[in-house]
Order: sequence, then C-alpha cells, then structure tokens
Amino acid sequence: MAVCKPWSACLLPAPKGRVCTNYARCVNQILQSSNNMQMWLRVPLRKHEDGDSMDDQSLGGDPIDSWETWNSFRLLCEHNSQLSVALDVLGSLPSTNSLGRWFGEPVRAAIIHTNAFLTNARGHPCLSKRHQKLLTSFFNHSVQAIISGELAHSVLVGPLESATSNAVNHDNSDLGHPLRSYLYYVGYLYQKMDPLPQQELYELSYRDFLQSPLQPLMDNLEAQTYETFEKDTVKYLQYQRAISKALLDRIPDEKSSSVTTVLMVVGAGRGPLVRASLEAAKETGRKLKVYAVEKNPNAVITLHSLVKLEGWENIVTIVASDMRQWDAPEKADILVSELLGSFGDNELSPECLDGAQRFLKSDGISIPSSYTSFFQPITSTKLYNDVKAHRDLAHFETPYVVKLHKIARLAPCQPVFTFVHPDHSPTKDNQRYTKLKFEIPDDTGSALVHGFAGYFDATLYKDVHLGIEPTMPTPNMFSWFPIFFSLRTPVCVRPGTPLEVHMWRCSSSTKVWYEWCVASPSESPVHNSKGRSYWVGL
Amino acid sequence: MAVCKPWSACLLPAPKGRVCTNYARCVNQILQSSNNMQMWLRVPLRKHEDGDSMDDQSLGGDPIDSWETWNSFRLLCEHNSQLSVALDVLGSLPSTNSLGRWFGEPVRAAIIHTNAFLTNARGHPCLSKRHQKLLTSFFNHSVQAIISGELAHSVLVGPLESATSNAVNHDNSDLGHPLRSYLYYVGYLYQKMDPLPQQELYELSYRDFLQSPLQPLMDNLEAQTYETFEKDTVKYLQYQRAISKALLDRIPDEKSSSVTTVLMVVGAGRGPLVRASLEAAKETGRKLKVYAVEKNPNAVITLHSLVKLEGWENIVTIVASDMRQWDAPEKADILVSELLGSFGDNELSPECLDGAQRFLKSDGISIPSSYTSFFQPITSTKLYNDVKAHRDLAHFETPYVVKLHKIARLAPCQPVFTFVHPDHSPTKDNQRYTKLKFEIPDDTGSALVHGFAGYFDATLYKDVHLGIEPTMPTPNMFSWFPIFFSLRTPVCVRPGTPLEVHMWRCSSSTKVWYEWCVASPSESPVHNSKGRSYWVGL
Repeated sequence: MAVCKPWSACLLPAPKGRVCTNYARCVNQILQSSNNMQMWLRVPLRKHEDGDSMDDQSLGGDPIDSWETWNSFRLLCEHNSQLSVALDVLGSLPSTNSLGRWFGEPVRAAIIHTNAFLTNARGHPCLSKRHQKLLTSFFNHSVQAIISGELAHSVLVGPLESATSNAVNHDNSDLGHPLRSYLYYVGYLYQKMDPLPQQELYELSYRDFLQSPLQPLMDNLEAQTYETFEKDTVKYLQYQRAISKALLDRIPDEKSSSVTTVLMVVGAGRGPLVRASLEAAKETGRKLKVYAVEKNPNAVITLHSLVKLEGWENIVTIVASDMRQWDAPEKADILVSELLGSFGDNELSPECLDGAQRFLKSDGISIPSSYTSFFQPITSTKLYNDVKAHRDLAHFETPYVVKLHKIARLAPCQPVFTFVHPDHSPTKDNQRYTKLKFEIPDDTGSALVHGFAGYFDATLYKDVHLGIEPTMPTPNMFSWFPIFFSLRTPVCVRPGTPLEVHMWRCSSSTKVWYEWCVASPSESPVHNSKGRSYWVGL
Repeated sequence: MAVCKPWSACLLPAPKGRVCTNYARCVNQILQSSNNMQMWLRVPLRKHEDGDSMDDQSLGGDPIDSWETWNSFRLLCEHNSQLSVALDVLGSLPSTNSLGRWFGEPVRAAIIHTNAFLTNARGHPCLSKRHQKLLTSFFNHSVQAIISGELAHSVLVGPLESATSNAVNHDNSDLGHPLRSYLYYVGYLYQKMDPLPQQELYELSYRDFLQSPLQPLMDNLEAQTYETFEKDTVKYLQYQRAISKALLDRIPDEKSSSVTTVLMVVGAGRGPLVRASLEAAKETGRKLKVYAVEKNPNAVITLHSLVKLEGWENIVTIVASDMRQWDAPEKADILVSELLGSFGDNELSPECLDGAQRFLKSDGISIPSSYTSFFQPITSTKLYNDVKAHRDLAHFETPYVVKLHKIARLAPCQPVFTFVHPDHSPTKDNQRYTKLKFEIPDDTGSALVHGFAGYFDATLYKDVHLGIEPTMPTPNMFSWFPIFFSLRTPVCVRPGTPLEVHMWRCSSSTKVWYEWCVASPSESPVHNSKGRSYWVGL
C-alpha cells in the first residue's frame, strides 16, 4: 500500500454480503498502524423496503440495508476516526427516514452513477426531485459528488456549454471528459442552492464543536461572553414583549400614571434586560422602578456606567449581590431573569429563582414563568469520536454545548423536566426523574444512538415563548446551541424496538447534576453517578 | 445507612418488575461512594418456562426470568464488584440450563424457603433431588445457605437431634430455633458431599485466578516451573504409551535387535520426555538412540547431570540448541515434543515443529501428531471484573491461563484451529481463520457472555490423546488450566439468537498473536488488532 498524504484517501470496495468480518479486520489492522491514512468504505445507498422482495432476490444475497453493513464494519473497527464512507447513489432511493441516518455518519463522497440520472425534455441528464434534495443535503454536509459509470445519455454537451459550442459528435478528444454533461448538471444543482443565512454563516465554525457548558454561578462570566450574548436582539425583543404584556395585564390604563411597578432583574449582567424592561415601560406607558441585581463585580461596574450614560439613575437601583442572599428592601411585582442554559434548568435557574422568590409578591410574576427541557436520540459519529478521543470516562459523562450539524435525528423530541415560577408548592424540590420511550420510525431501519440532543423551550409570559426546541425554535436567535449527552457505548436500536431512556436531575447542598441511562433495548451503565464527572456548582 | 465492616453485607430487597432502573441508580450511587460496602441483591430463583402461562399470571407482572432482572441491575451498576446476589430458592426450580447461568454470577447466599422443602416418610423436612443437587453445587461455589420462612413441618426435632431429645412440643424456648430441623437437613446435605479429589484440593487456590500465559520461546523457564510440570506423571505416561505404540508400528519384532530408532526430543527441558522415551524402549524391547535438544542453558546443565546419574551416556546425546536452528547430524524416525499451551498452538508449537521437521525423515513420526484448540462461551462476572480492574485495554485483549470455577458454560465447545505434524503441505502456513456459531440452548434463557474459555486436545499418536477439552479431558492431569479470552464489552445473547465469533491466528517475522471478535448478535471491536496487547515472541 502506498504512503498516502493526510488529505488523500484510499477508496475501499464495497463489502460483499452483510457480514464482512474478515474484511473489516484487515482494514482495522491498517488503520491501527497508520496515523493519517484515510479510508473510505464504498457502500451502496440501498435499503430493502416492504414490498421489494422481488428486487431483493435479484440482488442475490446482497445486504437488506447497506447502513447495517457500514455499521458492522465500523463497530468491528472501533469507530476509527480515519474510516469514512463513500456512498454509491443508485437510481432508486430508500425512504427519507432511512436516508437521514447517513447524516450522522462520516460520509465523504457521494458516487452518483450515470444510470441514476433521468433524461430531461432536451435529452440532458437530470436527477429526480428526491435525488436533487439528497444531493443538496450532501452538499450542506461537505460531501463531495463523484460521477461514475458509462455515458448513458445521448447529449454530450452540457446545458451550460451548449450556447458556446456547436460541435456535437461522439469524439471526446477535444470536448473534455465524456461525463461532463453529468458534472455540469451536478454543478448546476450546487449553484442553485440557497446561500446560507447570515446566522448560519456566523455559526459555521461552531458546527459539531464540543463546548463545555458555562458555570455562571461558580464562575463570573467574561466581558466577551456578555458582549456576545447582548447582541442577540431577538431574545431581548421577546423579553420586551413579555414584560410589556405583563405590565399591561398588571396595571390597567387608568392606573398607569399612579402606580409604579417594582421590577427586579435578577442576574442583570451588563444591563440588556434592564434596557428591555425600560423599553417595555416606555412602550406601554407604565411607570417602573427597577432593581438590577448582579453578583459579578465586573459586570456591576459596567452596569453603573450604563445607568449613568443613559440617565437611568432615578429609575434603576443597582444591587451588587447574589440574588439567593440579597435582603430586598421591598417586594417585586415582576421578576425578570435570563438564567436558562441550553437544557433549560442546567445553569441552575430553578435554584436561583427559588432564592429570589422570597422578594416576589405573592401574586407577582416571574419572567420566564416556566421552562421545559427536551431530549432527542441522535446518531453522531463525529461527536462520539471527539468525546472518545479524550480516552476517559469523565468526557463521556459530560454534556457538551454544541452546534449540531453532522447528526441524524432519530425520533421526535420529548419533554424531560419542567419548572414553573413562582413555585408555590409547600415542599420545593428541584430534583426530577423521568422515563422516556422513543419510537424510531420503522422505515428508518436499524440505527445507532450515540447520545441525546438536549434543547429547551421557555414560556416568558403567556404566549411569548423563547427556545431552541427544533419544531418551534425562536427564529434568528443565537444565544443557545443544543446540548449533547453522550452514551459511553453507542446503542443499536432495531426496528420495532423502543428506546427507553431514564433521566435524573439530582442535587446536594453544593451542586446539581444529571444522571442518565438507557434501559432498552439493552441496559447502559447509569452515567455520571453522584455527579462524579459533571456537575454544576451552587 | 450504618457503616458496614468489609466482611458484612447489606441485603437488598428483590426488585419489583423486570426493569428496576431507579432502584439500580440509587444502589449505584451508594456503591460509588463506598469502597467496601457489600450489597447483596435478593432475587427469586425463577424463570418462566413454556407452558407456565398460568403460573406467570399468578405472579402478577413478576419478571419472566429473574436472571434478567439481575442482569439489568448489574449492567446499570457497571458490573460493580461490591454488588452480589442472594437467591431465593423456591419450591419449583427452573430448567437446569437456566440454573447454570448463576454459577457465573457472584451468588453469595441461597435463601431456602421452608415451603420449598418436602416432607419425608418420618415427617421431617427434606428437599427434592433437583434441589439437593443445586444445593451441593452452591456449596461447591462457596454460596452460603440461609433458611427462611415459617415453620411448615410438624416435626420439630431434626433427624440428628431426635436420638437425644424426647421432648416434642411447640414451645421453642428450650429447644433452640424453630427452624433447626431445616438447618439440620441442610447441614446433612453438606456433610454427605463427596470430599474434593486430591488434585482439586491442590488447585483450590488457583480457582478463577488470572495467570499470564508462558512465553517459553522468548523466556527461559525457571527450575520451579520445570519441577511442577515434571510431577504430572499422567502426562508422561501418555507420552510413553504413544512412543511405545510408534516404536511397535515402526520396528517389527524381528528387527527389534538389529534396528536402532533415532528419536529426538525437541524441547527436552530437564529430561522427563527422555525418560519416557527410554521407558517405552525398555517396555517394547526396541533399540533407541536419543537426541535431547534444549535451548535453555540452565535446563541443559540439569539434563547432563541426569544422564550421568542414570548412566544414559551411550544412548542419549544432549544438544544445547534451539530446534529451529540446530544442524542435525542425522535424521530422526520419531520427533517427540511437549510444546503445547492451554490453547494448543499458543506457545508456538507449530512454528517450532516446522523448524524441527527439517531433521525428521520423510516417513518420520511426530508425537504429538496433531492438536486442536477449542472455544466455549462463558459467563464469568469474577474474571470479567478482575480483568476490568486493570482499567486498560491491554488486559482485555490478553488471554489468561485460569483454573475456571465460578463460570457458566453456555454452549458445547467447538474446535477452532488444528495443526498436523509433520506438515507436508507445499506452502506451510500457520496463520488461521475460523468462524464459530454457538447456539445457546433455548431453555437457558438470555445469557451474558463475558468471554471464551479455550482448551486443547492433542493426538499424541493414533488413539493416544492428551488434552483438557471438558468432554474428553485426560484424567488427573494438572499441567494445563484452560485459557480465557475476554470480551471488552460483555455480549447479551437472547434465546434463539446465535452467537457468532471470529478468530484469527496471525503471525509476523517476530511474533504470533490472536485476534477475535463477536459478529452476532452485535458486533464487538476486533480484539488485539495487530497483536497490540498480547503476542507470543518467536
């Protein structure tokens, strides 16, 4: 085998049959002995669907689902990060759900066979709508397209070339590659893709990059972090809308000039929620007295400058204190906070707001008034390998904030934990336990679960929501990426078998942590027992 | 929870229902925070068998197979070595195969319920034959018996007590514990057990103790090791029988005084095979010339002393050389060697004998003439935990020599690799590959495979065998314990699903190693790729 440069790859022929143990072993040996040899396993994009029995026979013992072949191969090779996939795209495509699995896999190339192309009215090669959509998704996932096969279309001149060239003959010596018309078409598909939205462009470098979640209680945030978050105008507009609605509900028009509402921003940071509150007051014509409570001394300095600069001295009182300890001089009508993490409660909003609730009037309003975390099983070879690369238990038991991109979402999200504020229950308890049962659609086929994507949705006030749950995200908001909870050993889920997950939110006097495990189809260890790997300090 | 001394244990109530995730999580938390707290999970010894549907309903949602409850629980607790089992023995017992699984588990106590006892003709409690057999097996596995329940038999006086006590009444103040008659019976079962054979007694301290296999080619054996092996008279008697038969076959009676057979002992050590050869010559009246080839200079010194002491100088020539390099002055009729490891070829007998074959006559005989390795899937929580305790990959990929005791043999052995000597094939190749498919009996239920027990059987000459394969072991031989190949992650095999294992014997110019993997029901990584963790030096 020749020495390969790191950016080159060796294309491996497709395994024959579903089990390919001996082949995988040989490849594994090579992968073990080379630090940078990239191997791309060629796999046909094929899955037997119900009613395909005739087709299946004609394939002569070929695999029912080529994803399973790939999965076997890479499990035997221990998820080696130098092993990737090159998919052979054929004329017919399996179900959309089954195709979706590949977006969690390291697919590097899509080899499109010329006989997968249709012929358009002008005799040019083109692709079916489903093929076009698939290819667009591949482009979005940095999968390169390769044309392969015999010339199967009579027109040799591509659509872009036809205007400038009149020579139409079967001698390809001058006209370039005989398959160029296919290439032109694929290039055309690439060019007609929608450009990435501004926000996606900004977030490109964060894709599938693991970030440790913040510890905003234990650590003080840096100026840079505040600056980034403050730019999220959408978020503060939602807050402003929520505060406006709450003010209108609380103070009827006739009392708008006589009653002053006491609003406390708990965790004021460098002041964006103070500004949103004052905007809401202006917008609704309500009178406001604002307390801005902030524990970070650096942020408090900036806050003082802001109040002076804006001339808010008569309205805004700055309190340099932890909201859990502050002895408030009066009680609040409205408590406004932005303490939510990617998983809602994971930055200890429940514990902080329980502390702040002491100085909220009994009929007072908390904004947010509730929030719920969500969970979703995903395939993500990339994230799994990045976690595994640390070679320790702690990283497998640490949830990471990550802009999810190379993933397959295997089932719809399900709610995990909900917190409501103010909490008037006699025994406040922020410990939680829930059991989730995910049904992966049957036409997906088997799937490998590397872990769970976590999201949140918050009700700020009444119908004003804020969140990142994928079916109802607040548009154009960038403050939160999802959170990823790994599994130490990926779990293979076969069609018709439910995936059962158990999730706990635990706390002690000094910290809060999650534990999680899979109970079906097979039991995983309980992850992060006693918060041994990951916890958030109180 | 009180502080427990290391030798005490906390008995945990039986989980309700098959899935016990929350219970397991709480126990796991305690196990994580304590270094010596022993926890015994109480589990009823129960498994639903075909046709038990009525019974099953009456159990009201109880688990179909209580072993599965235990398995879930301990998987959630990561095979914690402080977690053990206390089995409730009930009136009816599940199938023998399903009971067998428990012998690979850390069962510490058998809690025998009084209503599991029958009543004998004299009104005394007794147990069914199957219960007796089970209890005897438990005793053999250091499982303590506990009697539990209400007095269910009218006779209060135990069989051993009846002779000395005439008082029969229901007042238990003077007569000791009301359940003593059950205890007497259990004690009686214990006492009537056959005593351990001498060899088993000798091997007691080796039970389930992992030993690294020898490297007899790279390292020279120590005198102590030779001394131990030389005591195995059964082994050398088998060799003597094989050599006698070969001599009789090769030299007819009429030529016995005219023809001298050239016999070479390759790897003569301190001489036991030389002695066996000379005994065979004496026994058969054949004339022998012996070359004793040995590479270990220390052994050669002892060998010289032996030859002088026994007066064998005219018959035996000592050659201090590695058989693979020795330039023999003549060719041999018979080549005798004892180079076998627990797994047959694992101490490189094939490579050594290939080297020695140069000086074997074309019609010469090799003793052994062939050997085959065998594989068997086993449950062994003890061995798995001992391997895991090293917290690295290398130990999981190293086969260990071990006197197997606390194990469940899940399926009959299957042959793995066979080597035949002399090897007259044009291209000698000692690399091997095989695929084994084990069918675990359906009435076993689900089972957890921690790894594979390896054995060998050798044909010394014609019908003279030598080996440790469990169905045909050479009796009273102690030179070899089985070998244990671990799996990095135990594999759960459900009834009706075959267990498929792939096994390779690989070699390079400097070493020989095995690679292995499971391909069904789910793919494991290929273990020991390129011999990264374990190899035998050439």
